[in-house]
Amino acid sequence: MSKGPVVIEVTRGPVVESRHEGIAAVVKPDGTIVASWGDIDSRVLPRSANKPIQAMAFVESGAVERFGLGNEHISLACASHNGEKRHVETVRAWLGKVGLSESDLECGTHAPRLQSSIEALVREDATPTAAFNNCSGKHSGFLTTAVQYGEPTKGYIQYDHPVQRRLRSVMTDLCGANADDFAHGTDGCGIPTLATPLKGLARAMASMAEPSRLSNKHAEAATRIRTAMNAEPFMMAGTGRFCTRINSALPGTAQVKGGAEGVYCGMLPTLGLGVAIKMWDGAGRAAEVAMATVLGHLGVLPADQKEELLHPPVKNVVGLLVGEMRPAKSWLA
Amino acid sequence: MSKGPVVIEVTRGPVVESRHEGIAAVVKPDGTIVASWGDIDSRVLPRSANKPIQAMAFVESGAVERFGLGNEHISLACASHNGEKRHVETVRAWLGKVGLSESDLECGTHAPRLQSSIEALVREDATPTAAFNNCSGKHSGFLTTAVQYGEPTKGYIQYDHPVQRRLRSVMTDLCGANADDFAHGTDGCGIPTLATPLKGLARAMASMAEPSRLSNKHAEAATRIRTAMNAEPFMMAGTGRFCTRINSALPGTAQVKGGAEGVYCGMLPTLGLGVAIKMWDGAGRAAEVAMATVLGHLGVLPADQKEELLHPPVKNVVGLLVGEMRPAKSWLA
Repeated sequence: MSKGPVVIEVTRGPVVESRHEGIAAVVKPDGTIVASWGDIDSRVLPRSANKPIQAMAFVESGAVERFGLGNEHISLACASHNGEKRHVETVRAWLGKVGLSESDLECGTHAPRLQSSIEALVREDATPTAAFNNCSGKHSGFLTTAVQYGEPTKGYIQYDHPVQRRLRSVMTDLCGANADDFAHGTDGCGIPTLATPLKGLARAMASMAEPSRLSNKHAEAATRIRTAMNAEPFMMAGTGRFCTRINSALPGTAQVKGGAEGVYCGMLPTLGLGVAIKMWDGAGRAAEVAMATVLGHLGVLPADQKEELLHPPVKNVVGLLVGEMRPAKSWLA
Repeated sequence: MSKGPVVIEVTRGPVVESRHEGIAAVVKPDGTIVASWGDIDSRVLPRSANKPIQAMAFVESGAVERFGLGNEHISLACASHNGEKRHVETVRAWLGKVGLSESDLECGTHAPRLQSSIEALVREDATPTAAFNNCSGKHSGFLTTAVQYGEPTKGYIQYDHPVQRRLRSVMTDLCGANADDFAHGTDGCGIPTLATPLKGLARAMASMAEPSRLSNKHAEAATRIRTAMNAEPFMMAGTGRFCTRINSALPGTAQVKGGAEGVYCGMLPTLGLGVAIKMWDGAGRAAEVAMATVLGHLGVLPADQKEELLHPPVKNVVGLLVGEMRPAKSWLA
């Protein structure tokens, strides 16, 4: 069943200039492996690619209804957003609704992703705040859940805080292994990131894609999260981003989410499958082409975007086409 | 002689989160291989890592003397600079000295590297020009050489322009193979980049490091270029950059230069050696750790910077140390 690794090539003229290797798994909710490339028992840090899983406890808590939140907030809770105006303003308004503010966010502050956003801040003589952090929506979900359950909000990023314990409990229910046993590192935004076998990560995605084996509570939350990811794809990422593009092009068919260091996950509800990918070198550019390739292999890639997603152009400074990225023939012809 | 590949790991907490593989060669001017890891017969696109070689014809032309240029201009001709104020102003003044202007540069325009430079431009209500392009110094060298020889400046980036023909002729003299036979792609700045066997690239660096086998003209130019790289290390790159740091810390001992897609080259005159490295996935972060490791292996890494260069910290958004990069034990213990 298992085949050679995922290989993505980067060409320049007639030369393969660089190449990326990784692993990928396509799994059913019961753990059956439908397809795999490389050693999918390897443990990977999912980073932001499992944010839809991390949003489960928030949606299950009843806080969405209590505080009058909707799809845009649920999508933000699954987001690694660009820090564009709409992302930042929605996070600020959301925190206000639950009686908190940006100063309660423990994710830290970084510059927004797009140069136009950086320039806009300078023109307004403003500096980025925690709401600009690409994880601010996820952290707002964490804070909201703590408020909903009457827990202290301070320290919600710590391994033993109830917020983080619930994440592990959900992961355990979805992935087929005990997440409390996983080693962990600290993510960019301060929360623990759990060393998960890649096949378990794919299984968790499958469980959310086709949740009939889950408890009603989990199943309803999973369906609601998938709906929000398709309904508000801009909130998950933003202008120019791969997951915004896929989630907007394939409503009801695919919900994908990338993470730092070359991780990509996807739910495919019409097929009842979950996908997880890790590029060993951490290259996001390769993880995107790998996800597009797997989606194409499974027959769900939008026909009109196939060429561009499987063969993204490499351009030079003046905009000349000088090469392309592509799945290696040795991988999936 | 040849050993397993270069392997650089990226950790997060107790986990090796990502890993990079590559090839490296340490070579003498006569082509003798002193050390090698991975298949060093592989052809690689040197990108900007061979800019010191590309500066040879400029220095040999006599234009430095004629136009009153100095170390800062020679270093800029070898540079992938940040587009900081001093880089941009020096390029503009240089072009003025030879009767040209930024509109003669064919490298295109991109934003400067540092966020502070981007912000400064917005505050001045200015936009970046071609002088901000990280390759603008190299292109100024090309233009200056064309002026010196009375050649048309227009089209100096084309494969058959005398400027590019001279680059191949110098490469042929230094690397031990005929560069006219190399396949080529188009570099980010528009010039041809030649698919060079890694061991040939290392040999070219060795020839510049210990140029006694070269013609007097080549030998004098090589020595002058090495001197300039050490004397004006800021001009080669700028604030926070690896090659600025190494070239400033090791005057007379090392002159290194990185390129896009994970290439790094170095000249080690006191040892009479050249080094070339290519990380297959194109990761610059790994190429730097690999170069530091090779320098350490050869005994020329500054003692006070050893720990930080061999184990650069991985920090999260709030500045917490969450991991490190390191040479894998399987590579060079």
